[in-house]
Amino acid sequence: MKLLVISGANLNKLGKREAIYGTFTLEDLQNELIRYADPIKLEFFTSNHEGEIIDAVQNCDADALIINAGGYSHTSVAIADAVAMLAIPKIEVHLTNILAREEYRRFSVVGSKCDGVICGLGIDGYRAAIDVIKRRLV
Amino acid sequence: MKLLVISGANLNKLGKREAIYGTFTLEDLQNELIRYADPIKLEFFTSNHEGEIIDAVQNCDADALIINAGGYSHTSVAIADAVAMLAIPKIEVHLTNILAREEYRRFSVVGSKCDGVICGLGIDGYRAAIDVIKRRLV
Amino acid sequence: MKLLVISGANLNKLGKREAIYGTFTLEDLQNELIRYADPIKLEFFTSNHEGEIIDAVQNCDADALIINAGGYSHTSVAIADAVAMLAIPKIEVHLTNILAREEYRRFSVVGSKCDGVICGLGIDGYRAAIDVIKRRLV
Amino acid sequence: MKLLVISGANLNKLGKREAIYGTFTLEDLQNELIRYADPIKLEFFTSNHEGEIIDAVQNCDADALIINAGGYSHTSVAIADAVAMLAIPKIEVHLTNILAREEYRRFSVVGSKCDGVICGLGIDGYRAAIDVIKRRLV
Amino acid sequence: MKLLVISGANLNKLGKREAIYGTFTLEDLQNELIRYADPIKLEFFTSNHEGEIIDAVQNCDADALIINAGGYSHTSVAIADAVAMLAIPKIEVHLTNILAREEYRRFSVVGSKCDGVICGLGIDGYRAAIDVIKRRLV
Amino acid sequence: MKLLVISGANLNKLGKREAIYGTFTLEDLQNELIRYADPIKLEFFTSNHEGEIIDAVQNCDADALIINAGGYSHTSVAIADAVAMLAIPKIEVHLTNILAREEYRRFSVVGSKCDGVICGLGIDGYRAAIDVIKRRLV
Amino acid sequence: MKLLVISGANLNKLGKREAIYGTFTLEDLQNELIRYADPIKLEFFTSNHEGEIIDAVQNCDADALIINAGGYSHTSVAIADAVAMLAIPKIEVHLTNILAREEYRRFSVVGSKCDGVICGLGIDGYRAAIDVIKRRLV
Amino acid sequence: MKLLVISGANLNKLGKREAIYGTFTLEDLQNELIRYADPIKLEFFTSNHEGEIIDAVQNCDADALIINAGGYSHTSVAIADAVAMLAIPKIEVHLTNILAREEYRRFSVVGSKCDGVICGLGIDGYRAAIDVIKRRLV
Amino acid sequence: MKLLVISGANLNKLGKREAIYGTFTLEDLQNELIRYADPIKLEFFTSNHEGEIIDAVQNCDADALIINAGGYSHTSVAIADAVAMLAIPKIEVHLTNILAREEYRRFSVVGSKCDGVICGLGIDGYRAAIDVIKRRLV
Amino acid sequence: MKLLVISGANLNKLGKREAIYGTFTLEDLQNELIRYADPIKLEFFTSNHEGEIIDAVQNCDADALIINAGGYSHTSVAIADAVAMLAIPKIEVHLTNILAREEYRRFSVVGSKCDGVICGLGIDGYRAAIDVIKRRLV
Amino acid sequence: MKLLVISGANLNKLGKREAIYGTFTLEDLQNELIRYADPIKLEFFTSNHEGEIIDAVQNCDADALIINAGGYSHTSVAIADAVAMLAIPKIEVHLTNILAREEYRRFSVVGSKCDGVICGLGIDGYRAAIDVIKRRLV
Amino acid sequence: MKLLVISGANLNKLGKREAIYGTFTLEDLQNELIRYADPIKLEFFTSNHEGEIIDAVQNCDADALIINAGGYSHTSVAIADAVAMLAIPKIEVHLTNILAREEYRRFSVVGSKCDGVICGLGIDGYRAAIDVIKRRLV
Repeated sequence: MKLLVISGANLNKLGKREAIYGTFTLEDLQNELIRYADPIKLEFFTSNHEGEIIDAVQNCDADALIINAGGYSHTSVAIADAVAMLAIPKIEVHLTNILAREEYRRFSVVGSKCDGVICGLGIDGYRAAIDVIKRRLV
Repeated sequence: MKLLVISGANLNKLGKREAIYGTFTLEDLQNELIRYADPIKLEFFTSNHEGEIIDAVQNCDADALIINAGGYSHTSVAIADAVAMLAIPKIEVHLTNILAREEYRRFSVVGSKCDGVICGLGIDGYRAAIDVIKRRLV
Repeated sequence: MKLLVISGANLNKLGKREAIYGTFTLEDLQNELIRYADPIKLEFFTSNHEGEIIDAVQNCDADALIINAGGYSHTSVAIADAVAMLAIPKIEVHLTNILAREEYRRFSVVGSKCDGVICGLGIDGYRAAIDVIKRRLV
Repeated sequence: MKLLVISGANLNKLGKREAIYGTFTLEDLQNELIRYADPIKLEFFTSNHEGEIIDAVQNCDADALIINAGGYSHTSVAIADAVAMLAIPKIEVHLTNILAREEYRRFSVVGSKCDGVICGLGIDGYRAAIDVIKRRLV
Repeated sequence: MKLLVISGANLNKLGKREAIYGTFTLEDLQNELIRYADPIKLEFFTSNHEGEIIDAVQNCDADALIINAGGYSHTSVAIADAVAMLAIPKIEVHLTNILAREEYRRFSVVGSKCDGVICGLGIDGYRAAIDVIKRRLV
Repeated sequence: MKLLVISGANLNKLGKREAIYGTFTLEDLQNELIRYADPIKLEFFTSNHEGEIIDAVQNCDADALIINAGGYSHTSVAIADAVAMLAIPKIEVHLTNILAREEYRRFSVVGSKCDGVICGLGIDGYRAAIDVIKRRLV
Repeated sequence: MKLLVISGANLNKLGKREAIYGTFTLEDLQNELIRYADPIKLEFFTSNHEGEIIDAVQNCDADALIINAGGYSHTSVAIADAVAMLAIPKIEVHLTNILAREEYRRFSVVGSKCDGVICGLGIDGYRAAIDVIKRRLV
Repeated sequence: MKLLVISGANLNKLGKREAIYGTFTLEDLQNELIRYADPIKLEFFTSNHEGEIIDAVQNCDADALIINAGGYSHTSVAIADAVAMLAIPKIEVHLTNILAREEYRRFSVVGSKCDGVICGLGIDGYRAAIDVIKRRLV
Repeated sequence: MKLLVISGANLNKLGKREAIYGTFTLEDLQNELIRYADPIKLEFFTSNHEGEIIDAVQNCDADALIINAGGYSHTSVAIADAVAMLAIPKIEVHLTNILAREEYRRFSVVGSKCDGVICGLGIDGYRAAIDVIKRRLV
Repeated sequence: MKLLVISGANLNKLGKREAIYGTFTLEDLQNELIRYADPIKLEFFTSNHEGEIIDAVQNCDADALIINAGGYSHTSVAIADAVAMLAIPKIEVHLTNILAREEYRRFSVVGSKCDGVICGLGIDGYRAAIDVIKRRLV
Repeated sequence: MKLLVISGANLNKLGKREAIYGTFTLEDLQNELIRYADPIKLEFFTSNHEGEIIDAVQNCDADALIINAGGYSHTSVAIADAVAMLAIPKIEVHLTNILAREEYRRFSVVGSKCDGVICGLGIDGYRAAIDVIKRRLV
Repeated sequence: MKLLVISGANLNKLGKREAIYGTFTLEDLQNELIRYADPIKLEFFTSNHEGEIIDAVQNCDADALIINAGGYSHTSVAIADAVAMLAIPKIEVHLTNILAREEYRRFSVVGSKCDGVICGLGIDGYRAAIDVIKRRLV
């Protein structure tokens, strides 16, 4: 059982971003997710490159996907098309409530190709996604 | 510890709606949530009336709120204003992925006044909301 | 054989509205429809409350529906969702020609979930709807 | 007593179009209308040409008009202007529910210049139009 | 001489809302208006229900109307239609300056059917409305 | 105590404009306001020039401002910016109900920078503005 | 010297249209133009058919063109493309002021391909066009 | 008999503008118009100031008006309101074909308040306007 | 084996249009296509009339269709509806690259109902369409 | 003679995408093109990375270009700018008819900078592009 | 060598505006620019009047222009047209970053007619403009 | 003291692009900037890859940033988010006046997150940016 967690543009900078994103680093987040997901094994892919994210989605051999493509979520038809091809449980997570921010962050093309979307709940959003996936993979 | 779960327009008809909403009834959903939330106590409010939903939100004396206002989610500034006054954990849940349906269901005014939004995960979305609330209430 | 006729916002005030709506009262209209529909039995539900109209649609045990939701026709996704669940002949009637009035009255969400729409023909529009339903119910 | 029935673009192809238009041919429709309208005499004008439809409307010497301009309904200001000049009962009929189809079929300029519009009721829509006209011509 | 004052969605919560609405409660407001309007008698109707507000407007037997429909002001064609039928002096009042807030609060359908609109002046706005009505009723 | 009343584009022509503006002249209006405002002293500034109105707002040494910029109300960012700098009570008044007229008169940039807006009440709107200012200046 | 005058959709009905078009018939108009244009010879082409108007423009062997395509003026790219190919003086004339009517009559694609446009001046508009052409042809 | 000719923003610079405006100066234009209008007397008002143009329109004691407000034509509600008050023949003239230029020059608010509009015909447009006015004044 | 080639509005004028369309005439084009298509037999239909094009599409008894409706491509729902009924290979060809021209030429309703679209390649576009059809018919 | 064929986002996944794209793999497509293009030599560049596609276009030393940028076609100004700099024959090819799919796939910025566009014809579209290029390179 | 510096609406109030504009007065700014520009001579024109700014631009006999039209920058076609006529180096300067403020301040019509635009750099923006002009004038 | 200069999409092709960009190469530009910036040391980063630009911004250890992201400026929320995190002086430079080109180049998301923007001044724009940074770093 393996779960791929993709982190897109500027998520490698968590801990140094606006207060709305929280004070934890990406490493903090990933360590917590490893602990929480156990015994499901986590695989992390992190990149600021749209093309690399597409590659990672295409090459995904995990049993489920959690994706937060950062700023690309709202515009990348190309990532969305790649996600649409995956036939495994797939959930988009945003740390912040994208409905409560700028107009252009309200819609997520990538999220529209996932099974579901969780936003605004910080790390709890990732935990919730893992819980859902655990239930669906078992 | 008490959690209020509000179900709005046409959710009382679950089990008789389009396949996308699943085959379970609202009673099925509520029984499962009672079981899952334990030991947190659940209180249910279900109505097709926008005004009654506003009243329920205003009168809420629970420690947290899960709200699915149905068709009102996308247009009711009045419910959103009521939700905005509540100073407890509040999460919007949609059974279906509102980003993957009609244009006019993409945005949720009510959701924009909650802490977070979970959509597209069916009953699992409610379970996830309960998990998040449990963590935050303890 | 029973036919439910729903009259929404401000239709209880017929006879006191702008000339475009005619000079007859709702009671006049209903008496004429009773006479005209015979031997089909009519049931009337009249309300200014969006939620009550949803309830009435959900509880409908008639063999066919004629609905004129008044001002709600143009915006209420919630009533439209309720109408969409009904598996009986259903026709929307407007006394006035909604294509010839204000821009925002041109489209009817509720009408888009009915089998058909008749507008601009006054009481004749109701008579025509009854004729069509008679043909379909027999 | 004479009633002109105008059929516009592609209606001559009824019976060979998408299922939504039904399986009857234009001839079937016209024969049924002749039978149904009796003793009112029907005159038919059918054309794929916008200009010919304008000519027919201008030359109309009937006591009432039923018009279905097909695809021209939604865009032809020129036909609408011609219809606006006619001082007889005039009803637009569409076989399908134009509110439930593509965005660009929702509005009918031609319909906005008629007394009323009936749509979505198939041949019954034409029958209903004839009934209304009968009542108004007598 | 009687003046009806209608308070719509969430106005029953005055005193517990954002600072922009002031710190007084609805009761404070009403007491002050009773004092200020004297000798004109005030009648109050307060509800979070769109339908009840329509009913109240329809049943109004007062000599003038002051209405603040809250969040419904901006979208309710149904309330606006009801107000349009009233042939007495009618003034819309908003506590806050609706032109200086969110885009969607700028326009008030309900206000467009009143004689005039007063906004942004807090309780003074209600006092001003009463003054105007006094002048017009005498 | 001094109150500046600014009248913008075409207001000098009151009495010769459409019926909707009333039959009184600007002089009539000003005489009535002088009488009504007493003992507060009124200062009048009237101009058809956008730049002169900006100058007048910038040079204002009164204790409060009533402004009706006429046609400039709806488009002049420059006047609005000037008004925004004033730290005295400031109220926009329109003789007509700008919500009930052309689309482009609905919003007032200038009004959005005032404390409040009063419209549709004719001279009574000015009287109301004076009343509010009196209360606030004392 | 020859001048072609094209009259499009519904202009053959002048004298029977709304008051805004005047009370003269197309024949009245043409007789007056023949008189006024002398010694320039006039050729008239009148049709309700978009295609015939394109043909007439393509076949034009006159020294100048006056065109009023009626309702087609506002939408027909095809007529506009034909007009664009003509290398003679060409003026569009409208009897009414198209800027003062419905939104969709404001722009004229056909007019945008002419040398100039004259509107709102009734028959005088045609006379003015003839005067301009006379000056340019001599 | 007197005719006022108003020239607005940047028209005083004719002869030094883009080729599309021609090579003649405003003085050339005015001299030609004096010659052409004879025996009607011309009065010229030329200004780059929106407010001065409003003043000039308000103070107009001529028997007819020709107005070309330059760049103000397309946006100045204030000038349009002033023109709307004038009860004499009034024609807007543009040297260039405003339908064939930038999107934002297509509509003229000022023109929509005149009797008619002539554009794209250079000095001939002014001559045509004078001809029409002559016919109407006599 | 027969292939119908439809040429719409203004294509009969090839050789006399803007340089972007090339210098060849429609006859040149057709002769080249006859030569190139051999042994497939070509049938040509050319018209400036929207209605005639609809008729031609409806009456088509060829084994494949190449259509270039000229200016009608971008707006004619009626032609598109006719094309949609044809169950043979059908390709739209434009001589110019419609994506590189005016905004309103970017989309082709007619093209959206064909199997494919080829644009911007001049006569080569027609040759390519013939090649594709040859492969599909054999 | 060399022809560069660029395949963008998700085209490396052909054979595993929606039915609309066909069942062949990118390798199948490329082998067929090699066979078909002979004796012209093909060079292939395939990438999911926008930046790499720009690099490839900039470094192109082939005699012609066929480009299908996948999802980037519709939004990448950067790729379009690179293509615009190339002075060789360049044709965009899409396997599916982009006019018949989602609204946002209708326009192709990249295609607007090519000589022409071919879409909806599957592999035949590539064959057609090669034919056109052969004719132009010889 | 002379450089004209135009300051438009509300810039005369620098030092008393929002913090975003800085704390210096217009006089401070001008003194610093005189010092910095030396030996180039500066001429200042400051006005709140759109028409006066147009006059100043038209009458400009300097060798270069720096213009900050304030609120007029975003809407005044008339000033932009005047600037377009000037054949000297011309640079628009804004103290604040207009791309980072309200939507309606993002575009500057006036700036679009200058050689370049500098914004967001406070007095340094003026210094930079002077540096560029010095380089270009020498 | 170190200054990072980032050049994005297609800027590596300077000298081979449209005349509007000038005839100098990126190397020419960089050499001139090295000379001009002295004694401040310059570091250059040039890439056509959005992701690499984000990486470079994130890894920036310089004391100030000059960024010209090319085509990405107008759409890349991801680069803009990265720039927003930098707490050093940051200026966007465009060689051309982006307000005077295509609609879609008017706004720069990246620029909206910089301190200021300089455009339309060619190499002088870069020089000006260096001047401003020198003043701010000292």
